[in-house]
Amino acid sequence: MRMVDIIAKKRDGGVLTDEEIRFLIRGYTDGSIPDYQMAAWAMAVYFKGMTDHETAVLTDAMMHSGDTVDLRCFGHLSVDKHSTGGVGDKTTLIVAPIVAALGGKLAKMSGRGLGHTGGTVDKLESIPGFRATLSPEAFERQVQDIGVAVIGQSGNLTPADKKLYALRDVTATIDSIPLIASSVMSKKLAAGAQSIVLDVKCGSGAFMKTEADGKKLAEKMVAIGKACGRSVAALITNMDIPLGNNVGNALEVMEAVEVLKGKRGDLREICTALASTLLSLCHGWSHADAVHAVNEALDSGLAFRTMEAWIAAQGGDAKALTDFSLLPQAAVCHGVKAPRSGYLRHMDAEKVGISSSLLGAGRMKKEDPIDYAAGIVLEKKTGDHVEAGETLAWLYTNEERRIRGAEDLFLSALEWGEAAPAKAPLIYEIVR
Amino acid sequence: MRMVDIIAKKRDGGVLTDEEIRFLIRGYTDGSIPDYQMAAWAMAVYFKGMTDHETAVLTDAMMHSGDTVDLRCFGHLSVDKHSTGGVGDKTTLIVAPIVAALGGKLAKMSGRGLGHTGGTVDKLESIPGFRATLSPEAFERQVQDIGVAVIGQSGNLTPADKKLYALRDVTATIDSIPLIASSVMSKKLAAGAQSIVLDVKCGSGAFMKTEADGKKLAEKMVAIGKACGRSVAALITNMDIPLGNNVGNALEVMEAVEVLKGKRGDLREICTALASTLLSLCHGWSHADAVHAVNEALDSGLAFRTMEAWIAAQGGDAKALTDFSLLPQAAVCHGVKAPRSGYLRHMDAEKVGISSSLLGAGRMKKEDPIDYAAGIVLEKKTGDHVEAGETLAWLYTNEERRIRGAEDLFLSALEWGEAAPAKAPLIYEIVR
Repeated sequence: MRMVDIIAKKRDGGVLTDEEIRFLIRGYTDGSIPDYQMAAWAMAVYFKGMTDHETAVLTDAMMHSGDTVDLRCFGHLSVDKHSTGGVGDKTTLIVAPIVAALGGKLAKMSGRGLGHTGGTVDKLESIPGFRATLSPEAFERQVQDIGVAVIGQSGNLTPADKKLYALRDVTATIDSIPLIASSVMSKKLAAGAQSIVLDVKCGSGAFMKTEADGKKLAEKMVAIGKACGRSVAALITNMDIPLGNNVGNALEVMEAVEVLKGKRGDLREICTALASTLLSLCHGWSHADAVHAVNEALDSGLAFRTMEAWIAAQGGDAKALTDFSLLPQAAVCHGVKAPRSGYLRHMDAEKVGISSSLLGAGRMKKEDPIDYAAGIVLEKKTGDHVEAGETLAWLYTNEERRIRGAEDLFLSALEWGEAAPAKAPLIYEIVR
Repeated sequence: MRMVDIIAKKRDGGVLTDEEIRFLIRGYTDGSIPDYQMAAWAMAVYFKGMTDHETAVLTDAMMHSGDTVDLRCFGHLSVDKHSTGGVGDKTTLIVAPIVAALGGKLAKMSGRGLGHTGGTVDKLESIPGFRATLSPEAFERQVQDIGVAVIGQSGNLTPADKKLYALRDVTATIDSIPLIASSVMSKKLAAGAQSIVLDVKCGSGAFMKTEADGKKLAEKMVAIGKACGRSVAALITNMDIPLGNNVGNALEVMEAVEVLKGKRGDLREICTALASTLLSLCHGWSHADAVHAVNEALDSGLAFRTMEAWIAAQGGDAKALTDFSLLPQAAVCHGVKAPRSGYLRHMDAEKVGISSSLLGAGRMKKEDPIDYAAGIVLEKKTGDHVEAGETLAWLYTNEERRIRGAEDLFLSALEWGEAAPAKAPLIYEIVR
């Protein structure tokens, strides 16, 4: 079998055999297939796509390219949640304690942020004392006792995906639905959970720019999960506006706590949908029963108490969840004033995310340090009417000099109009 | 400027700027742009193509990536000929002495064969004593005195093309017309001649499988040459059958000599077209005058005497051109008998070429030695009627064990029918 023939076959629109796909992932992992052949193959896939079966085999091959996590001790209760990445997405901080409070077992490995989106581990580490590393024994015990533990990625999980993703990033082959689907699902399957809910975000702040592309990706990922014997569902959600009002690590922790303490709004709505879908999958509950249980857990304070126990178990100061002054505080807080009156017709979430990074909340390079207090609190969102001079948002940072560039970029993210825009739904669809 | 953005632009069907193209060739030559990015770019070009202007700039950038040959001392008389490669193509051995006899100056660097096509240098080296290396001074003096010198490729000509061609070969990105055109033309332009004739072969034995693709490639190459101030014309010729009757190094020398001594047929026809086109370009002669001069040079023996002088000047035994027993002789000569009666409807030239390689005439790897005496002499060609048991061809080799595989492959190259096939033209068109 020769890699050049496999590239040519895909280039000409052919369907690769299982053996060909396993040959290429095995060869790429062990280094016998070089980056340049893999890059040409990825570009051919960009143009010619892959069938559902090819994508499932690719996913399986990448999943088995390294270690896999064994969560069989938790049986059908082991759950996982994945978001394709969005600006201000703190849903894991909310969904995790809800699901844990209601019997799910979330043993999660999570990433750090890069570019315009934040990482869950970074957000948790803004809580004083929180540790994102646990021994395998402590990790398993915590999941058993509290129902949730979140640690940074460790071990040799899906090395083929890591290598391929890094290659795609520098060869303009990221935007391929089968390659995105197999990348996400190989990691999720290797992470071991039986029930998985996927949050596929669409819009200016997300990988998938349109609802149609989001649906294609969701269907592909659900099909892969089922082909591999897992219970999987995907929510297709609107990322045209940042989720909630806060962007930035400690700021997002605060907002998550507010929701866990009963605050209503779009963030609670989406977290309820994610948590109830996950509980339906792992317990077999009806949709109505699952939603009812989630609302109960939020309104009774059970979910919040589970978050306190979780944070404390990983060394974090749980008092900071009640007294926000114990969280990192920014030295500078700058109000962005509206330059004109009118309706906010659109807010480019990607630009808002980069603006938050410029304030110090995110990394542009892997090695960059993070300012946990930095970020943005939106006072106005898409659809609101604003008078000139009103405060649109608050910019937080520890370095005054960062304000100017972040403010300019933030303002450039806004589109104005004379009429209110049509209201877009928050959740487009659930794919099961 | 970032290579990943250039890849994405081409992937999305954009037109690259001159600066972007020069940036990528400079970066690829100096190693700052890695193979994997170049491979992804080449695959994007495969799918999205390049404009004539992009192709011309790419050619110019590759031409200037290394040394260039200065043939200005020969003025407008410096000529060159290039074939896109075919089975049994010994036209250079015939066209070179014709053009030299009529005042053209052919200072040619030529390649060695690989795969199913032979190289001119290999063919010349089958003549005892012939040397394909000359000092720059001896090379120039011989061109001045005799009108022709042919040496193996040397020096650092078009390193960007060498690197890119090797990469395309292993990434299934050879079959792209702008990439083929820029590869050929960058070498031809760097080689310095003012007037260039291209033989673009179409059919089963050539890169371009159809006449339409051949025409596209020819037009692209002629446009590039003109954009760079050279006189260029291209013949689109039929390679659906091997050219002439002999395939293999010494066997092709013999056939070339026969044509130079007056033998008629398809080989003389195509060589006349190539030589007269070249003479029209370099002398400004009319087509009719050029054809007349070529026929005179052949029929008077002038062209043959020029070949004798040329071979002798490079150390070769010119007597071998008259007494073929002085050329390498094969120990084994095997007649391939027709397995049935009928018309030969088609002969796959690529398979015939590989069959000749299997007999020892060609290389499968760069390091393979060559059996100069090995090859095939066709007794029957496409269109002929054959009786079962008649000899179709003679296979020559010095190793008996090679016969079996070569014969099987040769027979598999043939298509039989009950009626004579339509006669295809030898030369489809001349593009100027």
